[in-house]
Amino acid sequence: MHGECLPGPCGWVSISSMSTAALLVIGNEILSGKVRDTNSAFLAVELRKLGVDLERILTIPDEIDLIADETRALSHAYDFVFTSGGIGPTHDDMTMDGIAQAFGREIELHQSMVDRMARYSDKPLNDAMKKMAMIPAGADVLDVGGLWFPVVVVENVHILPGIPELFEKKFQSIQDRFSGVPFILRKLYVRESESDIADILNALLREFPELMLGSYPRMNEEHYRVMLTLESRNEGYVERATEMLVKNLPADAVFKVE
Amino acid sequence: MHGECLPGPCGWVSISSMSTAALLVIGNEILSGKVRDTNSAFLAVELRKLGVDLERILTIPDEIDLIADETRALSHAYDFVFTSGGIGPTHDDMTMDGIAQAFGREIELHQSMVDRMARYSDKPLNDAMKKMAMIPAGADVLDVGGLWFPVVVVENVHILPGIPELFEKKFQSIQDRFSGVPFILRKLYVRESESDIADILNALLREFPELMLGSYPRMNEEHYRVMLTLESRNEGYVERATEMLVKNLPADAVFKVE
Repeated sequence: MHGECLPGPCGWVSISSMSTAALLVIGNEILSGKVRDTNSAFLAVELRKLGVDLERILTIPDEIDLIADETRALSHAYDFVFTSGGIGPTHDDMTMDGIAQAFGREIELHQSMVDRMARYSDKPLNDAMKKMAMIPAGADVLDVGGLWFPVVVVENVHILPGIPELFEKKFQSIQDRFSGVPFILRKLYVRESESDIADILNALLREFPELMLGSYPRMNEEHYRVMLTLESRNEGYVERATEMLVKNLPADAVFKVE
Repeated sequence: MHGECLPGPCGWVSISSMSTAALLVIGNEILSGKVRDTNSAFLAVELRKLGVDLERILTIPDEIDLIADETRALSHAYDFVFTSGGIGPTHDDMTMDGIAQAFGREIELHQSMVDRMARYSDKPLNDAMKKMAMIPAGADVLDVGGLWFPVVVVENVHILPGIPELFEKKFQSIQDRFSGVPFILRKLYVRESESDIADILNALLREFPELMLGSYPRMNEEHYRVMLTLESRNEGYVERATEMLVKNLPADAVFKVE
């Protein structure tokens, strides 16, 4: 998707409505191999469904200056930024401070968050819980239904928790804010080896230069050796490309089409 | 680990022998949610075992200029860089070109790789296979035992394939090149909530400022609510910190220690 338009049977589809996104994962626990990051894969799938282009995933340690610098850079470069992790009550949770610093804002106690926590809690709030209500000044606080803790948004940066169950729930609760033109995807599972069909793929791309074509070898599959993906935001374009590809592959090479 | 030394019972351990690393994942298929990245988690665990600090994981699209710019920046900032993906025979494999561009080198056919491929192949090499032997001029080509394709190294950048089985095998075949001072890790599984023990954790860090302390809430565990991790490269330091923490937590709060 590097041009300004997409070719289509009915003229051109403007891509001005397409959105880009980046994910910043803040987590020593990921980098040190103690916890496996599942939020990246989740977000990649969800944004794809919405038609938003996820263009960068960056995982960094829990350090305020790093969080600030990377947040600022991503915020300028992409339409939407998401962060994962570092918003709990403990010493190693530095995301709010880093994001405040990114935009030259102070950190302050957000009274309506304190009130909300108090409603959900069965005991008085301690300092650790109050730390969770310290957010960048002027942030948007999104009320997301039954969730204990709101989603905090600073400029175009959406601050999500690292715990996968919460990351997923919170993203789903705000996903209506993000939308683009969805992709149409076709998958071909092919019995030939990748190097044997490379010329056919190159010929396909000469005919369909705007096609997003992926080729993924699989080592432990019984029935096929390569998964091919054909994508575009224009359905007719994908269908015509798929048709040409199937025609050009050797007879019996295609195990299945999805 | 931000100081220059580590405190220890027998004086100080120099960290001059500690190494840093970054991973560059090159893959539209990851960003678009079609393929789940498992190489990052694998490398994080393996580098940790070796005592190498993985400090950054960056996932970007298959675009030559991007690959070049990010490779150059990572190569300057970290001792070891690893790349994952984009070295197959098809149109979308641009990693070798990008890395050559990063260091102002040409791409050239590496004859000993062609010879090696010819030995392992049961049919004549086609253009697609020869593309896989096009590598940056002056690269090191590491012979890694029974593997069909060698590991190509340019400066401190180790170029690994995206297919998980191959990524893992190849990393294991060259892992002796990387070493640091291993970390000692203790895990405590605690029945209290994170916000109820935050003060105890902060007190622990005041006493053990060099400790790497992690606190990871778990939502779906029957027997505990938080996993705490205590780490240092100094074993005695970790043991003393663990002892103090267990002493300060409420009686019966610790479900188990690993």
